[in-house]
Amino acid sequence: MSAVDDAVTANERFAAASPPALETRPSRGLAIVACMDARIDVLAALGLGPGEAHVLRNAGGVITDDVIRSLAISQRKLGTREVMLIHHTDCGMETISDEGFATELEEETGFAPEFPIHAFTDAEADVRESVLRLRRSPFLPHRDAVRGFVYDVTDGRLREIEA
Amino acid sequence: MSAVDDAVTANERFAAASPPALETRPSRGLAIVACMDARIDVLAALGLGPGEAHVLRNAGGVITDDVIRSLAISQRKLGTREVMLIHHTDCGMETISDEGFATELEEETGFAPEFPIHAFTDAEADVRESVLRLRRSPFLPHRDAVRGFVYDVTDGRLREIEA
Repeated sequence: MSAVDDAVTANERFAAASPPALETRPSRGLAIVACMDARIDVLAALGLGPGEAHVLRNAGGVITDDVIRSLAISQRKLGTREVMLIHHTDCGMETISDEGFATELEEETGFAPEFPIHAFTDAEADVRESVLRLRRSPFLPHRDAVRGFVYDVTDGRLREIEA
Repeated sequence: MSAVDDAVTANERFAAASPPALETRPSRGLAIVACMDARIDVLAALGLGPGEAHVLRNAGGVITDDVIRSLAISQRKLGTREVMLIHHTDCGMETISDEGFATELEEETGFAPEFPIHAFTDAEADVRESVLRLRRSPFLPHRDAVRGFVYDVTDGRLREIEA
């Protein structure tokens, strides 16, 4: 059995329990941007239920064009107004460098990546920079309620970073 | 109280319950790419727990450079080998068009977006295309175990799409 087969089997049980239908618009008007890290259960860690918030995740929880695109749709088409940005301790993005990983990709594949890697060395500093990037984006109509955090993977605690 | 304040308060309760420390590498070797939609509780719907899978999410669950970047890091640095791609019924990406949303952004902000919008009209067809995009990416060392699904938001059921 592959992990995907296991997930498909688990989904049959999930669907059999008749989960409630929910509204399309996030009921709390909230969008979360967080790292893809497996240790972060975003909904559980923030006390959120299905239907309450958009959840955007990528390697690092960094602000890419894709995040701006997604937040623009979230705010303009689906009514969210607040953004919660979450990096975390012990992040894999701190173990690589932009140049090192780009070089590795090029050497192993023969193709230079046309996208930025977004490595960082200090999660707190990168949260500050990421919050500023969101606050400067003309495509987001709601930029006043963007707040940044670092999640500690050892104890599950959020720490707010003042921008 | 803002939604973010509520989440911070809920996180204090979460952390007080001493969640277990977890390994950095996803224990199931799985990465999931899904839409940011609030109605999808990815872990619950797939029977997964914290520590088991990377979770990548954006508007639509589409394959952007950011997703390729994140999966390259996931596979090359953190040992994942399988990819599960999930679009869903009643998706907001079906209610906009690339040209319409780009025009809206430019008219309202004075800036033309430099990123693609990735709207689609048929979730199933877009899953097929997205799976092929992943299978063609030179940056992903593990491309054989990429599978695509559509999640039904009315009953929580996954349907596999043959590529």
